Amino acid sequence: MVLHTMETAKATEVRPTRTLLDQLEDAGLLLRTGVDGLYIRTAAYQEVADGIDAMVSRWAATLHATRLHMPPLIPRTSFERTNYLESFPDLMGSVHVFAGGEVEHRQLLQRATRGHPWSELLQPSELMLEPAVCHGVYPLCARRPGSGPWLFDVSGHCFRSEPSKEPTRLQSFLMHEVVYVGEAAGAEAHRDMALDRGQALLESLGLEVAAVPASDPFFGRVGNVLAASQLDEQLKTELVAEVPGNSRPTALLSANYHRDHFGRSFGIETTVGELAHSACVGFGVDRIAIALLATQGLDPSRWAPSLRSLLRL
Amino acid sequence: MVLHTMETAKATEVRPTRTLLDQLEDAGLLLRTGVDGLYIRTAAYQEVADGIDAMVSRWAATLHATRLHMPPLIPRTSFERTNYLESFPDLMGSVHVFAGGEVEHRQLLQRATRGHPWSELLQPSELMLEPAVCHGVYPLCARRPGSGPWLFDVSGHCFRSEPSKEPTRLQSFLMHEVVYVGEAAGAEAHRDMALDRGQALLESLGLEVAAVPASDPFFGRVGNVLAASQLDEQLKTELVAEVPGNSRPTALLSANYHRDHFGRSFGIETTVGELAHSACVGFGVDRIAIALLATQGLDPSRWAPSLRSLLRL
Repeated sequence: MVLHTMETAKATEVRPTRTLLDQLEDAGLLLRTGVDGLYIRTAAYQEVADGIDAMVSRWAATLHATRLHMPPLIPRTSFERTNYLESFPDLMGSVHVFAGGEVEHRQLLQRATRGHPWSELLQPSELMLEPAVCHGVYPLCARRPGSGPWLFDVSGHCFRSEPSKEPTRLQSFLMHEVVYVGEAAGAEAHRDMALDRGQALLESLGLEVAAVPASDPFFGRVGNVLAASQLDEQLKTELVAEVPGNSRPTALLSANYHRDHFGRSFGIETTVGELAHSACVGFGVDRIAIALLATQGLDPSRWAPSLRSLLRL
Repeated sequence: MVLHTMETAKATEVRPTRTLLDQLEDAGLLLRTGVDGLYIRTAAYQEVADGIDAMVSRWAATLHATRLHMPPLIPRTSFERTNYLESFPDLMGSVHVFAGGEVEHRQLLQRATRGHPWSELLQPSELMLEPAVCHGVYPLCARRPGSGPWLFDVSGHCFRSEPSKEPTRLQSFLMHEVVYVGEAAGAEAHRDMALDRGQALLESLGLEVAAVPASDPFFGRVGNVLAASQLDEQLKTELVAEVPGNSRPTALLSANYHRDHFGRSFGIETTVGELAHSACVGFGVDRIAIALLATQGLDPSRWAPSLRSLLRL
């Protein structure tokens, strides 16, 4: 039995006549699914992503962080404790399921067969898509009062509903965070230390990044005020890079100080009984992988030995 | 800064007074999220899962299968081409999003604040949760007519809406499939070969499995007929094992011959212009990991060197 694989010819140079996404697909790295922002990762691509993940985890291990792998879903009750519904409703994904019997099932099929909408026959489940991997750790801390401060090394698939043809803006993407939960001073110190170390880590990969004050994409007019306040208080810093093919600098990492936002929402107490503060540094694993591919070439087997060695390729 | 980790004392023996899930949590392997069937995987657990994944991929590489990593979501248009809505409506997960403006957002928040349902203010997105990783490969084949037969080595997070306290029945779980798409004879041969090889692979890990004819959990009364027909035609075989703590034998692997079901649904042609047939063998990675933990002990660092070596632990 002769079997043909899906591998396509490796493109080793960025060709300006095709979009970055075209080039990633031509080079057998990401495959389109038909929905913007949802791609299948090939082995060649995933090895780069895994290399980035492992690099972050090697650093986090020196801090004695607890390594956790988050599922792509989060309990709706946890989701509702974050500010996501208030601040980013347009980005969330809610999981709905069918709980009807045979009569409702026949209605469902009739509508689907005629091309009519059928989703109103569904109901919300206990689950939401995970918008950020750090959201999964706060309930763990709340269940263990007095046992902090905590440090976590967490990764997983996240979701944001923002269809785009830019491969650095995925709907389903890999995120890796190092999260501190504890005293206020510890959270600020973690944010500063992790930002510095994150920058050194990205620079060691040959990426040229710049630290810029940033704000989250808060929704609506109230959101504009929240974003301005977040900027004023310097709660969020991004490390951005020029990615060939992208019109604007791309954030590869963000460092965030949440004050007691999550401590209050989830009821997390420090060892002295105060509301916990938290901070995280989040690595956009797909964005870093794509920035490397766009700048170092689309064939990782030809990357410099020093880079390949750092990523254990 | 002294940092405490979430690691708990390692339990090395299965204690009959606690459920298997309790024991997996006590041993720092799976952590509860508050929703049955959704757990956080610790490093110790994920290493076992990764070892199983790598073992399947080493075998698939000898077949020159194309390795792909599936996202946890699938386009709704692809989902609608499978028979999932007809056969397993109760297991599916549909992703709904908010596309309203500020007025609708205020309604959303008012309802959420009062504890009223708010999901009817959402609308179905272009995405569904992925019920089986093989579903992602058929559109790829359809786009490349005449280039088959194809063999894929695919893995990812799958979803089935079936809350359960049995840790071998997760809502969000890791699946790894080796999928053939091509001629009918090739599909049948793949199913038979992959079943044999899958059995050898599980037995090499020390798992005692038995091959049993099986059917899928088709919905409703029509489903009973479909299940009986699937059994009659011997289209599905499962490898089941006794897992301590589970009331019934647990399926760790299934081998499936789909005839031209997916070829017809997705419009996939063989090299001679006929409808493609397909077959897959699916490894339940979490189930295999949990079966190993339940039989070999909850501390993988104490497993036999031969087993640790096979899993590269």
